[in-house]
Amino acid sequence: MRELVVHEVLQNGLHHGPRAEIVYGGRRLTYEELYGRVLRLAQSLKKQGVDRGTVLGVMDVNSHRYLELHYASSMLGAVLHTVNFRLPPGDLLYCLRHAGVEWMFVWEGFRESVSRVRPLFRNWVWLTEGDGSPEPGTPTHEELVSEGRAEVPEEAARVRETDPYSIFYTTGTTGRPKGVLYRHRDMLLASLGILHHLALHPTGAAAGSRDVYMPCIPFFHIHGWGTALFVPYLGAKLVLPGRATPAEQLRLILEEGVTWSNMVPTQLQLLLDAADQAGVGELKGYKVLTGGSPVPSGLARRARERGIAYSVIYGGSDQLAAAISVVPRGVAPGSDEAWEALRTKMLPLAMVEVRLADEEGNPVPADGKSIGEVWVRSPWLPDGYYQDPEGSRGVYLDGWFRSGDLGVMHPDGTLYVVDRRKDAVKSGGEWIPTGVLEAVLSEHPAVAAVAVIARPDERWGERPLAVVQPRGGLAGDEARARLEASLRAYLAAVVEEGRLARFWIPDGFVFVAELPLTSAGKINKVALRQELAAREVGT
Amino acid sequence: MRELVVHEVLQNGLHHGPRAEIVYGGRRLTYEELYGRVLRLAQSLKKQGVDRGTVLGVMDVNSHRYLELHYASSMLGAVLHTVNFRLPPGDLLYCLRHAGVEWMFVWEGFRESVSRVRPLFRNWVWLTEGDGSPEPGTPTHEELVSEGRAEVPEEAARVRETDPYSIFYTTGTTGRPKGVLYRHRDMLLASLGILHHLALHPTGAAAGSRDVYMPCIPFFHIHGWGTALFVPYLGAKLVLPGRATPAEQLRLILEEGVTWSNMVPTQLQLLLDAADQAGVGELKGYKVLTGGSPVPSGLARRARERGIAYSVIYGGSDQLAAAISVVPRGVAPGSDEAWEALRTKMLPLAMVEVRLADEEGNPVPADGKSIGEVWVRSPWLPDGYYQDPEGSRGVYLDGWFRSGDLGVMHPDGTLYVVDRRKDAVKSGGEWIPTGVLEAVLSEHPAVAAVAVIARPDERWGERPLAVVQPRGGLAGDEARARLEASLRAYLAAVVEEGRLARFWIPDGFVFVAELPLTSAGKINKVALRQELAAREVGT
Repeated sequence: MRELVVHEVLQNGLHHGPRAEIVYGGRRLTYEELYGRVLRLAQSLKKQGVDRGTVLGVMDVNSHRYLELHYASSMLGAVLHTVNFRLPPGDLLYCLRHAGVEWMFVWEGFRESVSRVRPLFRNWVWLTEGDGSPEPGTPTHEELVSEGRAEVPEEAARVRETDPYSIFYTTGTTGRPKGVLYRHRDMLLASLGILHHLALHPTGAAAGSRDVYMPCIPFFHIHGWGTALFVPYLGAKLVLPGRATPAEQLRLILEEGVTWSNMVPTQLQLLLDAADQAGVGELKGYKVLTGGSPVPSGLARRARERGIAYSVIYGGSDQLAAAISVVPRGVAPGSDEAWEALRTKMLPLAMVEVRLADEEGNPVPADGKSIGEVWVRSPWLPDGYYQDPEGSRGVYLDGWFRSGDLGVMHPDGTLYVVDRRKDAVKSGGEWIPTGVLEAVLSEHPAVAAVAVIARPDERWGERPLAVVQPRGGLAGDEARARLEASLRAYLAAVVEEGRLARFWIPDGFVFVAELPLTSAGKINKVALRQELAAREVGT
Repeated sequence: MRELVVHEVLQNGLHHGPRAEIVYGGRRLTYEELYGRVLRLAQSLKKQGVDRGTVLGVMDVNSHRYLELHYASSMLGAVLHTVNFRLPPGDLLYCLRHAGVEWMFVWEGFRESVSRVRPLFRNWVWLTEGDGSPEPGTPTHEELVSEGRAEVPEEAARVRETDPYSIFYTTGTTGRPKGVLYRHRDMLLASLGILHHLALHPTGAAAGSRDVYMPCIPFFHIHGWGTALFVPYLGAKLVLPGRATPAEQLRLILEEGVTWSNMVPTQLQLLLDAADQAGVGELKGYKVLTGGSPVPSGLARRARERGIAYSVIYGGSDQLAAAISVVPRGVAPGSDEAWEALRTKMLPLAMVEVRLADEEGNPVPADGKSIGEVWVRSPWLPDGYYQDPEGSRGVYLDGWFRSGDLGVMHPDGTLYVVDRRKDAVKSGGEWIPTGVLEAVLSEHPAVAAVAVIARPDERWGERPLAVVQPRGGLAGDEARARLEASLRAYLAAVVEEGRLARFWIPDGFVFVAELPLTSAGKINKVALRQELAAREVGT
C-alpha cells in the first residue's frame, strides 16, 4: 500500500510533467530539476542532524526554496512550522517556542524583522536570492542544496501517513495564536480534495492539468491553500510570485500565461486596480479561487466585467478546506444567477459534511432563510489545537468542528456563509449577519470598504454600526452627511427588494480614512470595536 | 475526523441530490427514499443477528436492492461477499466457504442455479421483483425493508475505515479463484479516485455531477468498478439495468437520458450491434468507460463513428483501479491522435504509481518501445490474497503489486498495456504482445473476433498462432485458405507501416465458429490452448 505522505506527490509530478516549469524571479526549474534539488537538500539536512520529528521553522515568500523545504522536510519525517511572517514579533516568538522550532530557514528579505529572534537559534539557514550569505559563517539554502547527494534518503520510506507534517498558528483576532498540527494524510487529502472539487463541479475556478498556476496565498497559510501540494501533483507549470506587487502579479499573468490563482478578496481588489492603472482590459481565461472573507458583490461584478471567473472557498487553518462555491443543478452556466451562485452557494468537498446548528447544537432547517452556526466534519479534521486542550474544548466536539461562522443552508444543499458568529450582531435575540450588510453596502459606488460591527444597545442588546471608508478619502462634515443619507436611502431600497430585513439597517454610520487590517489582510473588527469604544468614551 | 467508511457516502448523496432518481425496472426511488430503505434494512438485519464482521453473500444483478445491501452492510460493520454469479457451481461453493459466508441474499432469477447451494444455508433472503417469496417461510428483501425502523443503527458510528468492507474472488483462468479483501477506505478512495480522474483529466468518459449513470459492469465486480459508491456520492441519477439485453440497454439510454456507462469491450460491441439493428444512428453525448481487455481499434472506430466517447480503465480485482486513458498534453482534443490516445495512453490515478520492470525487477525504460511487466503501488492496494500467503508470494511485493501484465511506457509518462504476461508469446527470448496483434487483426473486415495464443516451437520456444472467428460464420476449406492469404497480406502491409515487428506475424491461422469465453466475458485463452493442444495431439 502506498502511504498518503506528502513527498509521494513529487513522483506524480515527475510522471505527469517532468519538464514543466517552476518559475521564480529570473529562475526556471523543471520538476526533474526541482526533484534533484529536493533530494540534495534532504541529504544535506540529514547530515546536519535534521531527523524524524525535528521541527523546522520557515519564513519565506512563495518561492521554489519554500517548495524544496516542503518536500525535503517531508522525506526526512521532519515537521515544518510554516511561520506567519505578518505576526507581530511577540506572537511570532510565542509560536516558534510553542511549536518547539529547532531550525530556522529565513528569507534575507526578513532580516531586519527577525533581528530579535536571530540570536535565539543556533541552527539557522538564510534563504537568499543571490549566492552569498548575508551573515558570514551561516549557511544558505543554496549551499545546502549544492552540498548534498541526489539520492532518496532512506528515511523517506519510513514516514507514515499519520505522522505530523506541519504546524501552523491561527491568526486569531483575540488572544494568543493557536497551533494546529497537520498529519501527512490530512494535508494530502485536503489539498487533492480542493483540486478534485474544482475539477468535478461547475465552479468558476475550474482547475486541470493544463492550467498555469500562480498561488498568491502565502505558502505559510495551509501551504498556500494546498497549492504547494496539488500543483506539483499535477506536474503543471507553476509561477511563484515571491513578494510581487499587484502590478508585478499582473505582468506575470500576462507574460507567463497564468490561468489560475488563489487570493483573498483584498488582493483581487488590488489586482483589478493595477489592471485599471495599466490599461489592461480583459483578463479572459484567468480564474481565481478566493476566500478568507466574504466576496463583496461589487468586487464580483468588477471581476466578471473583465472576464475573470471565480469561486469562493470556505475553510480555515483550524479545519482545512470544507466547501467551494459552485453553479447549482438547474442553473444555466453564465447566467446572472450562476455568477451570483459562484459568490454565495457552496458545496462541501468530497467526504466533507457540513451542517447548521443553533446554540444548543440542534439542527437548523435548510430553508434558505434560517441562520445557524456552521459545523464541519471531514476526513482531515485535526483532533484539536496543538497542545491546547483548554482552547480545543467546545470547538472540537465528537468529531465535529464548530466553526464559529454563521451560515444559511439552501434547499438545494448549498451553503452561504454569512458571517463570523463573533462578528455578527445579536439584536433582540435575532442574528444580523454583518457580512451580508457589508456585501450590500460595498455595492454602493461611494464606498471603498466597509465593516459593520456591533454596538451595545440598552433596548436591543446590540445594534449594527457601519464603519465606512469612502472612495476618494474622507470629505468634510457636509459631504459625510450627504453620503450617510444616500446610504440610508440605498439600504431602504434594498429592503424593498427583499434582500435585507428592515431591522438589519445600521443605526449609525461612521466614516474613516482607512480600515485597520489583521496580519491575514482581513478587516480587524476587534481593533475597530476597541477604537470606536475608546472614541465614544472620549467624547 | 470523519472516517473514510462506505456508508458516509450516502450523506453526500442526500446533500447533493436528495431528489435525484434511482431507476430499476418500473421502480423509481429518490436518494431520500433509498436512504430510508437502507436504514430499515440495516435495523432488520441487526435484529436478525447480523453483526460486525458477519459475512453476507450477495448474488444479484445491478438493482436498487444490491445498492441497499451495500450500505446496510456497511452501517452494521458486516462484510459483503459480492458473489460472481457467472462462476461454475464448484468454484462458487468454494468461494462461499472460503469467505465464511453466513447469510445469503439471492435474486429469484438465480433460483435454479443455486439449487445445490440453497440447502447449505439456514440464513437466506430472496431478492425478488414482486411481493411474494418464492419459498414459503423464507423472507424476502422487501419484507426485511418493510419491517425495520428508519433509524441509523448505532453500529454505524463505530465502523473504522480500516475495517473490512467486502470480499471478492478473482476469476483467474487457471486454478482456484483467489479472494481479495477490501477495507472501507480502500474501496472509498479507489472509487472516488476513478471519478476524480475522469473529472480532472481530458478523458473520453468525463464524469460529473450532471451526468446520468448506467453501470453495466456487474456490482459484484469491484462494486461495478466503484459506481455503487461514486454515483450515490454525487447524488446523480442512476439507471440500474438489471439483466437488460443490449437492446434493452439501448432503450434505457434513450428513454432515461443516460450519458455515462461502464462496460467491457464485448458489451460495447453488442450494444453497437443492437443500435445497428434498431436503426439508431448517433449516440452523441454518450460516454463509455471500458476496460478488462484491450479495446480493438475496429471497435473504437465504430464507437467514434456514432459519436460515443470512451476511455479505457486499467486495474483489476487484485489491485483495484490503477490508470485511465487520457488525451496527453500537446495533443489536440478531437484529433485522430487524441482518439487513438484514448484507446491506448493511460495516466495513473491520483497517488497511484506505475512502473515497468523486467523479470528481475529492474526498471524498463520509458521509450515507447521496450516492453516490461506493469508494477503498481497505490493507496488502496490489498496486502495480499485473502488467507492465501502462498498465492500472494511474489505477487504482492514490498508494497507493490506485480500485475502480470505487459506494458510500454511512453516518454510523455503514459502507459499502454499490451498483454497479459501469461498470454504473451516469448519467441527467441523476445515478447510478442498478443493484444496488439489481436487489435490489428480485428480491424480486418472479415474478422468477427480473434485470439492469438502461444504454440510450443522447437526453434523459438514459442510462436504465435491466430485463432480467428470469421464474420458470417465458418466457410469451406477454400474460403478459409483465401481468408488466411488475405490476413497474411494485410499483416505484411501493417508491418510495412511500422506498426508491427515482422517476427510477430503468426506462424499459423486456425478458424473457429465461436471463441470460448470466461465467466467475466473475456476470451478464455487457457481453454483455447487446451482445446488446440488436444486437437493437435488428435490429428
